[in-house]
Amino acid sequence: MNKRPLILVTNDDGIVAPGIRVLVEIASALGDVVVVAPDSPQSGQGHAITIHDPLRLKKVNLFPPDVEAWECSGTPVDCVKLAKHVVLKGRSIDLCVSGINHGSNASINIIYSGTLSAAMEASLEGIKSIGFSLDDFSFDADFSPSKPWVRKVMEHALQHPFEHGNLLNVNIPKLPAEQIRGLRVCRQADARWVEKFMEGRDPSGQPYYWLTGEFVNEDNADDTDIWALQNGFISVVPSMHDLTNYKAMKELKVLEHGTPVREMPSLA
Amino acid sequence: MNKRPLILVTNDDGIVAPGIRVLVEIASALGDVVVVAPDSPQSGQGHAITIHDPLRLKKVNLFPPDVEAWECSGTPVDCVKLAKHVVLKGRSIDLCVSGINHGSNASINIIYSGTLSAAMEASLEGIKSIGFSLDDFSFDADFSPSKPWVRKVMEHALQHPFEHGNLLNVNIPKLPAEQIRGLRVCRQADARWVEKFMEGRDPSGQPYYWLTGEFVNEDNADDTDIWALQNGFISVVPSMHDLTNYKAMKELKVLEHGTPVREMPSLA
Repeated sequence: MNKRPLILVTNDDGIVAPGIRVLVEIASALGDVVVVAPDSPQSGQGHAITIHDPLRLKKVNLFPPDVEAWECSGTPVDCVKLAKHVVLKGRSIDLCVSGINHGSNASINIIYSGTLSAAMEASLEGIKSIGFSLDDFSFDADFSPSKPWVRKVMEHALQHPFEHGNLLNVNIPKLPAEQIRGLRVCRQADARWVEKFMEGRDPSGQPYYWLTGEFVNEDNADDTDIWALQNGFISVVPSMHDLTNYKAMKELKVLEHGTPVREMPSLA
Repeated sequence: MNKRPLILVTNDDGIVAPGIRVLVEIASALGDVVVVAPDSPQSGQGHAITIHDPLRLKKVNLFPPDVEAWECSGTPVDCVKLAKHVVLKGRSIDLCVSGINHGSNASINIIYSGTLSAAMEASLEGIKSIGFSLDDFSFDADFSPSKPWVRKVMEHALQHPFEHGNLLNVNIPKLPAEQIRGLRVCRQADARWVEKFMEGRDPSGQPYYWLTGEFVNEDNADDTDIWALQNGFISVVPSMHDLTNYKAMKELKVLEHGTPVREMPSLA
């Protein structure tokens, strides 16, 4: 490349989470880095955007001096929108990386994850993007075995074209460096959360419900991201924003026939 | 059917929005209805869930006396989780309907919409589900032309099997009854929001940024939901939660080859 690429870094654990420092470090070796990340933890925010309230941006000094960094009061998706339209107005962003998330975002977690929703938002803007997650929820998670692999995926993204709207969902197993067996390109496993609610009473005696749950995978094929993680591989799932179920379209065609009864007394 | 189906009704505009009353009215003609909906507007919440705070549920009398209704302090997805695991614990839900949203959720809006995310959450739980939206943001929108069509789609859903994880994204044009030309089964148009931020200063002189934007569609094929709405049809897009970009998997396989250089002094 003739000039250094511009790399936007964000996450959903908040700008002070250790995982984002790893992305900033690696991105800084590959290009010019701008960070726009939430000022508080935003796990589980999915693709939420802030419509009803104004957003705040504040320049911060949390990274090496050549890294421009802003904390934002909104969601991860808000951060990407503000980065493109306010912070980097008019500049072309070559790559957006989100994470490294503290905890896996394999399978259905892509739907709930602010980390991946930020990456998807960037992909909607035509920016190459990657969400990275380590399968370890701990604040003190050891990200060092991830580093060469994160760099490999970032370099690949910078050097190859992405189909419009494509993003990569990369999950890294919690393993020592020598036990990571490589990368696998996978599909999203059809796993899900089985929820429970912790029920209790607050100090004034009113009931509350607090979400908890267990991740259940009954999709045991060997081409999924869950399989890859369980077998010592880093999973890479190319993902996109088209939720159309093309297979289901044909049998639904019957709905197009006939008109409903317009005279329904009970619905008048 | 031997017994009346159990229909869960939710939305993202909040339990007092006029749109949800239309769904309750139609669902009541077809089955037993339970409402669990947000106590405040939740537009743009996407698939957000509430992890860091407890949730509240409060029984309310906003509908006819045979309709059990609860307002919830969380997001639309939280409402579906609470409905299944707390309010209707152990009961089998035959159908979940979400809406009718005040405003279109065609195309990429499925990603941002709390209405559709609630429907998707139900589909993840194995519940047949449908998100309904009227292409009119007004609080006083006229939902009456929608009614026979909403009933037709609900009846179809109750009478036919759904593939696991499938949901329907139904959008209704803002037209008088006699101008609605029918239903079309469509794919999600590849349209997007082009954002701007309204910038200002708050009373203490600090800058703020407020999200605004314009919906842009350059996907002019005649098999999309946007085409259907623009041509007087109700769009029905069968949708799902698998975001894998299967087409992109093959060319990404090159990533699986080779191992990264583990000795990177700058990344030590």
